[in-house]
Amino acid sequence: MALSNSKPSLHTSLSPALLQLYDANNCVVVIIDVLRATSTIATALYNGAKYVIPVDSVAKCIELGKQINCVTAGERDGKIAEGLSYGNSPFEYSRAFIEGKILVLTTTNGTKLLHMALDKGAKHIITGSFANLSVVCDYLVAQKQNVILACAAWKDRVNIEDTLFAGAVIHRIKDHFTINCDSSGIAETIYLDAKKDLYGYMKKHNASHYLRLTGYGLEKDIRYCLTEDAADVLPLYEDGKLFRLHDIHKNNV
Amino acid sequence: MALSNSKPSLHTSLSPALLQLYDANNCVVVIIDVLRATSTIATALYNGAKYVIPVDSVAKCIELGKQINCVTAGERDGKIAEGLSYGNSPFEYSRAFIEGKILVLTTTNGTKLLHMALDKGAKHIITGSFANLSVVCDYLVAQKQNVILACAAWKDRVNIEDTLFAGAVIHRIKDHFTINCDSSGIAETIYLDAKKDLYGYMKKHNASHYLRLTGYGLEKDIRYCLTEDAADVLPLYEDGKLFRLHDIHKNNV
Repeated sequence: MALSNSKPSLHTSLSPALLQLYDANNCVVVIIDVLRATSTIATALYNGAKYVIPVDSVAKCIELGKQINCVTAGERDGKIAEGLSYGNSPFEYSRAFIEGKILVLTTTNGTKLLHMALDKGAKHIITGSFANLSVVCDYLVAQKQNVILACAAWKDRVNIEDTLFAGAVIHRIKDHFTINCDSSGIAETIYLDAKKDLYGYMKKHNASHYLRLTGYGLEKDIRYCLTEDAADVLPLYEDGKLFRLHDIHKNNV
Repeated sequence: MALSNSKPSLHTSLSPALLQLYDANNCVVVIIDVLRATSTIATALYNGAKYVIPVDSVAKCIELGKQINCVTAGERDGKIAEGLSYGNSPFEYSRAFIEGKILVLTTTNGTKLLHMALDKGAKHIITGSFANLSVVCDYLVAQKQNVILACAAWKDRVNIEDTLFAGAVIHRIKDHFTINCDSSGIAETIYLDAKKDLYGYMKKHNASHYLRLTGYGLEKDIRYCLTEDAADVLPLYEDGKLFRLHDIHKNNV
């Protein structure tokens, strides 16, 4: 915890391969996987999912699907993975479909990162995306703890959309933190350059995920995942599950 | 080598911890350590140093100093390292001092990265800095090979100045390459945002090296290292030494 008379610190880890460079002990760690895991998690919880269990493999997803009554979801190469029932698109998780259900979602990059943050002693782990930008920012300011914005990237390669989201958070809350972190300055700069047209920025720079998802005909997913506050809930990780923060307080889960 | 009817690729590795993600085999790898190793190397060669031997420890530097007639140089915590004779500032390497001499320089981040690139089968390794921006760009375009811009960073943490230099290179030569690399798009964006006042950009974002070097009273070094083409030579690595490219061709070293 920061000293009472100084601001807590904020750092940005642009790739899971860099997370080890930062001291996550007692931090709030924000897992960022904008296209599309953390956008889909926010959307499912916003639309009433009971909770989300993130797992790092299709096999574990299938296994859980046999053990509990849940929706199993995940994609490989743009298609629903064999043995699972649903995909990674936030549009699959309408209220009519997901309300009251448990969603088990495979997210390779994001789940790996989440477990790394746990192992390193993070105090709280939340997930962030443009879909819940404002509630993430409000939470981080209210916590008054050191923060690490942890980008899931793509197979450890830095990606534009997660960096843009980190920059959006930094731009909004930087006055509440001490930021001596070059990656944070870089993230804020690209966000400010791109913010008028995030989709156009992704397209202009041939962002790898832009190319991958448009190749599958998923422009609509990208546009949704770059829209602010479409699903304003705060997913908080506890005991292997992502809950809405509000529910944790209410139900003392 | 790229196919004759397609452009070669260009990737940017923002930290040595990320270099392994890129295929360096047969590439031209540009080692970037703007503050101050690669700026000082360009300056020493521009001012007539015979060649520069980069080593990764003070001990190796001292050892070489006993074996050959050379200038040993390196700093730790802003001071000349114990047992060495000179520091890391480009201002120490005037023509009057360095012409005809061999410089042995300790550069922890840069030398480690150079050896990684060698191990991964790089075809050519050069060093880049704003001091030799134009000749680096001209060389990369002329080679028509795949390129990796490899930032030395700071103890694996991404830094602003090396990313800015990668962005400057990309902005100048991107039409000659196929670039599907989010880090390259990020680097070009921050360079375009910062280029009118690189020093001001470093200061505004509390860049870690800006804080470190100004703490030692080295504003002048930072300003020089952000000045384009002050030492327009191309340092090329061969057999453990960095030569001026011109000398290699002339003398068939």
